[in-house]
Amino acid sequence: MRIALDAMGSDRAPAVEVEGAVGALLERPDLNIALVGDRVAIEAELARFPDAPRARIEVVHASEVIRMGESPALAVRRKPDSSIVRGLRLQKEGRADAFVSAGSTGATMAASLLILRTLPGVDRPPVAAALPAPKGRFLLLDMGANVDLKPVHYVQFAQLGTIYAQDLMGIENPRVGLLNIGEEAEKGNEQTVEAHRLLQATAGIRFIGNVEGREIISGKCDVLVCDGFVGNVLLKFYESLSGFMAEMLVHEMEAQQCFLDLTPMYRRLDYTDTGGAPLLGIRGVTFICHGGSPPRAIQNAILAAARSVERGVVEHMARALAGPGEGAEPA
Amino acid sequence: MRIALDAMGSDRAPAVEVEGAVGALLERPDLNIALVGDRVAIEAELARFPDAPRARIEVVHASEVIRMGESPALAVRRKPDSSIVRGLRLQKEGRADAFVSAGSTGATMAASLLILRTLPGVDRPPVAAALPAPKGRFLLLDMGANVDLKPVHYVQFAQLGTIYAQDLMGIENPRVGLLNIGEEAEKGNEQTVEAHRLLQATAGIRFIGNVEGREIISGKCDVLVCDGFVGNVLLKFYESLSGFMAEMLVHEMEAQQCFLDLTPMYRRLDYTDTGGAPLLGIRGVTFICHGGSPPRAIQNAILAAARSVERGVVEHMARALAGPGEGAEPA
Repeated sequence: MRIALDAMGSDRAPAVEVEGAVGALLERPDLNIALVGDRVAIEAELARFPDAPRARIEVVHASEVIRMGESPALAVRRKPDSSIVRGLRLQKEGRADAFVSAGSTGATMAASLLILRTLPGVDRPPVAAALPAPKGRFLLLDMGANVDLKPVHYVQFAQLGTIYAQDLMGIENPRVGLLNIGEEAEKGNEQTVEAHRLLQATAGIRFIGNVEGREIISGKCDVLVCDGFVGNVLLKFYESLSGFMAEMLVHEMEAQQCFLDLTPMYRRLDYTDTGGAPLLGIRGVTFICHGGSPPRAIQNAILAAARSVERGVVEHMARALAGPGEGAEPA
Repeated sequence: MRIALDAMGSDRAPAVEVEGAVGALLERPDLNIALVGDRVAIEAELARFPDAPRARIEVVHASEVIRMGESPALAVRRKPDSSIVRGLRLQKEGRADAFVSAGSTGATMAASLLILRTLPGVDRPPVAAALPAPKGRFLLLDMGANVDLKPVHYVQFAQLGTIYAQDLMGIENPRVGLLNIGEEAEKGNEQTVEAHRLLQATAGIRFIGNVEGREIISGKCDVLVCDGFVGNVLLKFYESLSGFMAEMLVHEMEAQQCFLDLTPMYRRLDYTDTGGAPLLGIRGVTFICHGGSPPRAIQNAILAAARSVERGVVEHMARALAGPGEGAEPA
């Protein structure tokens, strides 16, 4: 098992990436990692870890970095020696089984589509995030800003999310909900009304109907599908709230001179727990991390990518999308 | 000043409405209230308040109630003697200055449009909500589930929200943001990209650009415009979070045997503070309350409706929408 890691992606690259990689290697002795990026900078960071298993680390030099502000599609074409493009090429050439990056989400998505290609039956690969709820986690997709969707894309998200929840979250028969503004099938915008109808007619997924905003973290569903606009707004809003709540709590604790240890709460709300968000529906494994990821998030993303590979998520998805008629000759 | 109150709207009608009305009347001696609904039930509730200023209360009988599940447009036409239709007719006929309801949002919107009509230049009257943030409140609109919008509708929301924030929230020159998935003007879906361009070109509003999910409660803007799908999901999600946070906090307090008084925090997050959400862009004043509103929320909605009337919000909106060329002869 070999993971290609974009060592230049995060806000504090390559320090965070190198530390995360070393952590993952120490946790899993069967793992190999290719650190992709500026060789000199990576080696300098590696020197800080004398106990790093160097035999399982390869540094793959890449002379370019795609910056956050760049147009993803253009950057991927103009920077063939960027850490993102080089890392994904390793996977394409069979020299790595998965790719992890904390760099530009748009560029990582664009390069994954261009280099790895999508699975048959997938038009818009979604990014999924496992978000904390009072009882366990649920998978929300798309967070990858696939906007202006067609109703059929929601069905693809539901199929991909179902497999991911089964394989990686250990949920046997995941309940799929459609994020919407009312319970009734006829509620919603043009897309969700039609998506509801299609989801109901799709075999192989356990569609439980519409899920309203107030039910998102209620545990009503395991997989929640929405367009990338709503998903992006919701994810970022959710992440920002723990800061707001913490601010209010600290204020109250000081006013009341009653100090609660908030660490266990933060741990539950901590996105670094899951580490990265998988890009689903491509012919390979790509995990996307926050630009502000700490080493633990990178480490967890590497480990999640490794589990995706060994559990055969991509093969399961290809099979699910092909449907029950797979292999049958057309009449 | 006379407010028509739908006495049959809330989950515990008419008890909650009558108590809220009495509270508002005791707070403002210049106020009159028409309680619209089942006369017998309303009188029975009124009997519980011997100190209620009966001279300023009129009970207007309405024999029908529009239920939550009913199709708004159909119900409004089929139930002319419903408390919502009767209450709005009082305003139309000049026998009331504003209307408040905790009944079906859809029916209240539909009846307001049908009976009061929209202001010139408004196609889709939005529902606005003043939401709590670390520093004060900000106005989010539309929450009223106006979906499948055209870009020009965001501009109308911005114009209406600006006036409301000025007149009712005391913000002199409100900063208007467009809820979106990136900072750059070209980010977003088809609607928001074009809405951004239109907002920038519109005089009379202080457009500060796109606002991302993580910035919603950052205090970056005073008025945040979005389509009713996103707004509805976000509002309901936000409301549900205080329950989730409370659950986690109570769990921690018990585990740590350290008990913080959460009342001040709840008070800040409490939607009953603002009471109701105004429907903007109509030729009159309509406030919509939660079906689960407590009396205090009804009371605050009545008082907010009264302030809207006395500050001339509707006239200001009509003037703003007419634009600087108002009254000029076409060449």
